[in-house]
Amino acid sequence: MPRTIRIAAAQMGPVNPSEERSVTIGRIMKLLSEAADIGCDLAVFPELALSTFFPREYHVDLREADIFYEKTMPAQDLQPLFALARERRIGFSLGYAELVEDDVIGRRYNSQVLVDKQGTVISKYRKIHLPGHADNRENDPFQNLEKYYFEVGDLGFPVVNAFDGRVGMCICNDRRWPETYRVMGLKGVELIVLGYTTPLQNPRADQSAELRQFHNHLCMQAGAYQNSTFVVGVAKAGIEGGVELMGGSCIVHPDGRIIAQATSLSDELVVADCDLDDCLNGKAEEFNFERNRRPSLYEGLLTPHGETA
Amino acid sequence: MPRTIRIAAAQMGPVNPSEERSVTIGRIMKLLSEAADIGCDLAVFPELALSTFFPREYHVDLREADIFYEKTMPAQDLQPLFALARERRIGFSLGYAELVEDDVIGRRYNSQVLVDKQGTVISKYRKIHLPGHADNRENDPFQNLEKYYFEVGDLGFPVVNAFDGRVGMCICNDRRWPETYRVMGLKGVELIVLGYTTPLQNPRADQSAELRQFHNHLCMQAGAYQNSTFVVGVAKAGIEGGVELMGGSCIVHPDGRIIAQATSLSDELVVADCDLDDCLNGKAEEFNFERNRRPSLYEGLLTPHGETA
Repeated sequence: MPRTIRIAAAQMGPVNPSEERSVTIGRIMKLLSEAADIGCDLAVFPELALSTFFPREYHVDLREADIFYEKTMPAQDLQPLFALARERRIGFSLGYAELVEDDVIGRRYNSQVLVDKQGTVISKYRKIHLPGHADNRENDPFQNLEKYYFEVGDLGFPVVNAFDGRVGMCICNDRRWPETYRVMGLKGVELIVLGYTTPLQNPRADQSAELRQFHNHLCMQAGAYQNSTFVVGVAKAGIEGGVELMGGSCIVHPDGRIIAQATSLSDELVVADCDLDDCLNGKAEEFNFERNRRPSLYEGLLTPHGETA
Repeated sequence: MPRTIRIAAAQMGPVNPSEERSVTIGRIMKLLSEAADIGCDLAVFPELALSTFFPREYHVDLREADIFYEKTMPAQDLQPLFALARERRIGFSLGYAELVEDDVIGRRYNSQVLVDKQGTVISKYRKIHLPGHADNRENDPFQNLEKYYFEVGDLGFPVVNAFDGRVGMCICNDRRWPETYRVMGLKGVELIVLGYTTPLQNPRADQSAELRQFHNHLCMQAGAYQNSTFVVGVAKAGIEGGVELMGGSCIVHPDGRIIAQATSLSDELVVADCDLDDCLNGKAEEFNFERNRRPSLYEGLLTPHGETA
């Protein structure tokens, strides 16, 4: 009996700085409701879905950006979203900024939750591969201050039993790192859901928009194939705060092929029926880790770098 | 000043079981000579280039296949090849079966050497990710008995200073494993040269020829991009011993794009000028390992599997 689940990559168009939070939540609820209408089991939303990508703007005191963080999940004004999931029997995954107030300054993470069809948070991930910089670079065409606003995630890469399979999460720049997929692959992951907010230009490299979209898909496709897992990548797309963000939200099969892809830079559901049993052959044969990996010969993979910010 | 070297992926058509070894060596010398004629600094030959892919055939006593192994490199009849390299001032890399006679049975490896423009062996690699099986599966449409004929390589993934850069090697199935590229990436590799002998069909999976060629390129392209290195993949192609082998020999830029690719399934030089300085931006920015990798959070990557054969 196949383990088929219907998944929606719920791409979002830009959330501009002037947009009211209630409007953004309304957009998310509309996408979730539409996904439920067409029988989806799971809808995946982008990174930092509840606000504009605020790490573009520098504040001398980082606490000035605390309005963008959630202190609880669900926050009070997200209760209707969780209720909708419960009523319509659809799970979702959502990226957001998380503030843990356990001391005067608090700890800040770029986080993502997985919510089941009962509207219950069943897994949380905190972004590990933070891109960008911690210093103010106001002469750059635009900034990515993630290393200023967030700490490195401290939860590893959790993989949980959910939606009839093994489900893990990562966020944006994590998808470029093969370690991300492999750590979860070793835990038997069958579905990785991730959101991203990726500019079409890179201020630090001469890369065309086309090349950057190619990199986006290349990493997810290789990660899927090399770990025999579905990968669902979901963009915040379009021009947000003056910066062009790539779209290209997609669902990648364990054989590495893209089986569904966004056609717009706006709010859009990208849907595919995913039989998690399609992960089994790769795990048993080509990527049978027990039989074919050689950890004793992988020198240096875990040697500390100093891990500077 | 750019560090540009001209590289030839020296694809070979089939080496059928009936072909005399002297004929095969002649083909290799012809390709090397032609590569020198067009100013190449380095020519890369396939896996097990000196013979047919003998692990297709089972022998009850594996020593019956010892005629296919080199006990020294260069063997006596390869001296003219090495002399040609020295005379024409061109380096090469060559895959071969290696027999180390240090006890009664000896040790056997699927190996590859890197030879400089003086005709000197400057690095050796022994294949780590052996595919296939150790048991006789005579009911399969064809066999891959690499786990019977070879031991797992014991030299790690060496990276040496050569050709004005940092050069590493791997072989065939190694290219499917992100660890292969990463171990060398951590040693600053700028050029990975590899040979492969890959059937167009997989007896253990429902994969079209097109999908398998896509996997071939996907892994090399992701490995190149994620480690900011050139990758040169060289096929033994065409119908050999009744088995269809994929071609698709290619040179991959550190940005992940294929910049040169074979158009035949025969002996063919695939040539590109590769500026090794093109590796620098990726290593300094997107894939700056010191700044962005997080080894302390990569749980399980080096946990032994038992590493069963």
